[in-house]
Amino acid sequence: MNDPNGLFLDRNGTYHLYYQYNPAGLIAGNQHWGHATSQDLYHWQNQPIAIFPPNNDSQVFSGSAVVDVNNTSGFFPDQDNGVVAIYTLNTPSAQVQEIAYSNDGGYTFTRYSGNPVIDSNSTQFRDPKVIWHEDHWAMVVAHSQDFVIGVYTSQDLKTWSHASNFSHHGLLGVQYECPNLVKMPVEGSNDSMYLLTISINPGAPLGGSTTQYFPGTFNGTHFVPVDGAARIADFAKDNYAGQFFYGIPDGRDALSIAWASNWQYGQSVPTAQEGWRSAMSLPRRNALANLPTTGWNLVSLPHDLSPVLGEQLAARGDLSGDTLVVDYSAVASNALYFEANVSGLAGVASAATLTFAFGSPRSGEYIRGGYFFGGDFYLDRGGVRGFDNPFFTDKFSAPSPLRADGTWTLSGVVDRSVLEVFVDRGARSATSAFYATQPLTSFSLSTAGLPASATVSVAVYALNSVWADTDGAQVVDVRQSGQ
Amino acid sequence: MNDPNGLFLDRNGTYHLYYQYNPAGLIAGNQHWGHATSQDLYHWQNQPIAIFPPNNDSQVFSGSAVVDVNNTSGFFPDQDNGVVAIYTLNTPSAQVQEIAYSNDGGYTFTRYSGNPVIDSNSTQFRDPKVIWHEDHWAMVVAHSQDFVIGVYTSQDLKTWSHASNFSHHGLLGVQYECPNLVKMPVEGSNDSMYLLTISINPGAPLGGSTTQYFPGTFNGTHFVPVDGAARIADFAKDNYAGQFFYGIPDGRDALSIAWASNWQYGQSVPTAQEGWRSAMSLPRRNALANLPTTGWNLVSLPHDLSPVLGEQLAARGDLSGDTLVVDYSAVASNALYFEANVSGLAGVASAATLTFAFGSPRSGEYIRGGYFFGGDFYLDRGGVRGFDNPFFTDKFSAPSPLRADGTWTLSGVVDRSVLEVFVDRGARSATSAFYATQPLTSFSLSTAGLPASATVSVAVYALNSVWADTDGAQVVDVRQSGQ
Repeated sequence: MNDPNGLFLDRNGTYHLYYQYNPAGLIAGNQHWGHATSQDLYHWQNQPIAIFPPNNDSQVFSGSAVVDVNNTSGFFPDQDNGVVAIYTLNTPSAQVQEIAYSNDGGYTFTRYSGNPVIDSNSTQFRDPKVIWHEDHWAMVVAHSQDFVIGVYTSQDLKTWSHASNFSHHGLLGVQYECPNLVKMPVEGSNDSMYLLTISINPGAPLGGSTTQYFPGTFNGTHFVPVDGAARIADFAKDNYAGQFFYGIPDGRDALSIAWASNWQYGQSVPTAQEGWRSAMSLPRRNALANLPTTGWNLVSLPHDLSPVLGEQLAARGDLSGDTLVVDYSAVASNALYFEANVSGLAGVASAATLTFAFGSPRSGEYIRGGYFFGGDFYLDRGGVRGFDNPFFTDKFSAPSPLRADGTWTLSGVVDRSVLEVFVDRGARSATSAFYATQPLTSFSLSTAGLPASATVSVAVYALNSVWADTDGAQVVDVRQSGQ
Repeated sequence: MNDPNGLFLDRNGTYHLYYQYNPAGLIAGNQHWGHATSQDLYHWQNQPIAIFPPNNDSQVFSGSAVVDVNNTSGFFPDQDNGVVAIYTLNTPSAQVQEIAYSNDGGYTFTRYSGNPVIDSNSTQFRDPKVIWHEDHWAMVVAHSQDFVIGVYTSQDLKTWSHASNFSHHGLLGVQYECPNLVKMPVEGSNDSMYLLTISINPGAPLGGSTTQYFPGTFNGTHFVPVDGAARIADFAKDNYAGQFFYGIPDGRDALSIAWASNWQYGQSVPTAQEGWRSAMSLPRRNALANLPTTGWNLVSLPHDLSPVLGEQLAARGDLSGDTLVVDYSAVASNALYFEANVSGLAGVASAATLTFAFGSPRSGEYIRGGYFFGGDFYLDRGGVRGFDNPFFTDKFSAPSPLRADGTWTLSGVVDRSVLEVFVDRGARSATSAFYATQPLTSFSLSTAGLPASATVSVAVYALNSVWADTDGAQVVDVRQSGQ
């Protein structure tokens, strides 16, 4: 599987995740929309394939889904929970935008007889994402190799009018893909703004795939960014095609899920013998924060982990100048959550550091990360040896300036082969896949050089397997469903 | 040393290169303007320090130089070769723009008594670069942490008026530094455009330092980019603060030199025992080309290498499906130039590859690169072991789409500890420092999977040392002058 598609929250509190899915193989091709549902965004119930291509020559590419509460489409005369999926049908001659509707809340879909709803003679026109804006539907869709995001509007999801273009902004790479337009709460206020995200692939600065974002305003037809800056959503290399959930109530943080891989090597990572090839990122809650100097910034933090949070393995009230080591070889899931909260950083010396590592005592392999307080934060996956590829970059970093209040935070989740970190209250995040020959079972975290005023509280938790509480036959973890 | 400063070509054909220089140490601090001159941009004569700070509390930071042929400044009543340097004086309370003038063609300078020419109360306002535009001087200068490039104009280099701002464009990182505005020929035509470059540090997507560029128009007061895209000048990690030479005649390619390092690790690379810390990039000739889909693109190629080109070590008319190995252990400079020119690529299979490596038979260390035809080009410095640093990223890549004419080119220079490559006629370039424990002395280049129509011509040359033909006492290679 690859891109998440059609993310929405239904009125019963069920999250729906569709995904690009090849039922016939472990790499992309022959694309359908797979489907999974969850009550908590961690435990997923795989569902039957939701949308099939109409013939062997076409594929159902990425897109979105909405709940047509008011039956604007006319597909749902007797219900207020009808679901419409808006997706790209890829054919040998063109990519066109189609819709399909579901009378059963998103489990089975019927292709609209009037498709395509947006015709085209281009083979590079895809990935529609639709939202409701006050009194109409609004779609963003990528003219991929023209570097244009088209904005279209509709009253009924069937007839679409071109409203505006957002073109040649930010990093171009070789293609624009998977645009998202989403209303986004402003951290610490009741305000909201809009966020436009554009995934690019190939040609990211780090190679291959990445996602950039533009905070701004949207009046229903035109998106205007706050400035001309190009901002990158994730500073490592394995976070692509992220999509925001439709149907999150106003005032709540936005929610998103991305594909935790990179097209440069995602089809050849060494997991095929386990029957899967890639995973989704953690579900993330998102808001916008106006940071000093750099301005509007996407905040990403893990969605409430309590459904999977297990035993607390270690905690320290103050780890200043000290090291914590946790043996987690007994954690059956091999998954951990850790956090470090630092305060009292006023006047911190530039030589102060925080470092952490996950290691295999058996093979000596490790992944690590660290922070030079006031400077850059880094991740390094170069110490594991299970995968060699000319595009599998070892190190990633991002600046993390100190806040005026003298605090700094780090949290992270390691889940077998994916590490995600959230730096400075989520101002920076990174998703990094890694492939060790032996399980990593030892965690360590150290600090050095901090001023006497600083306090470093640290906690480490086991994460429960989302597979363990089922019989394994009916439920699969879509996060690692390769097929 | 670090940033190149004050680059200009005088009327006698001498290139002047000033550079950020700490006469008291091997890392930045106590900054002066060092100076070197060259007739060919490869053989450099180090000169006495050109500009000293006025006191121990201030430093002469980066800037530019112009030849005031018409004595607009009034400093040169009796000459038409007066040189004015425009630089930032860094003090504990502010960064201000100063000028100094030289009556002897750029060797010794006198600070202007009316300094500063642009006052400020900011400690983040620096790196003025001045050009002549039709009937006035125009300066670009960075308000670094406001992400603003200010444009100022002057008739006499002494009195400056604020004309416009170019703000919050492209990648922000943590600071804008070292802007350049330069008239640039359009490849294959008699047209010209303007190019604005902005270096950012820290906070580049790959970590630390990088340079981005904006093609556009300049009317003497306002720069307008062709679009909102952010374009990166060099796809590896060691090309920063590049500056364009003043005084290159209209119609010739622009010429530039950058600092071949990165602030994330440039002060700690393992060369101090040799008395130097970093080097300048190769001199490059630059033009703009309008590429399919991605649009205006900076072309970078090595300036005419003939002054240093040595013996041809190997050449093949067609290396399709074959491998060339060159032992260059007898090349005293340990420096090589290689090129591969591929034609007949129409219908190339996606599995076709070109790969190359420089290796040490003694230690097994190597650096390598390669191209998946039609896809990405990569560099990998992860196979050398002389330097370990959490920010010393191993791999870099960039897309290199095939041209309609079915040709593709690669050239490269390896010079002890710096590899520079020029991909697809310079549409992409990369500068990568590396630190092996043993000299790399074996070069190999292979191709595989090319169609029968393809031809791959390859040539490999020794490069002569720019040190060897001197007695070593009077002349130093500023490219590797650490002090």
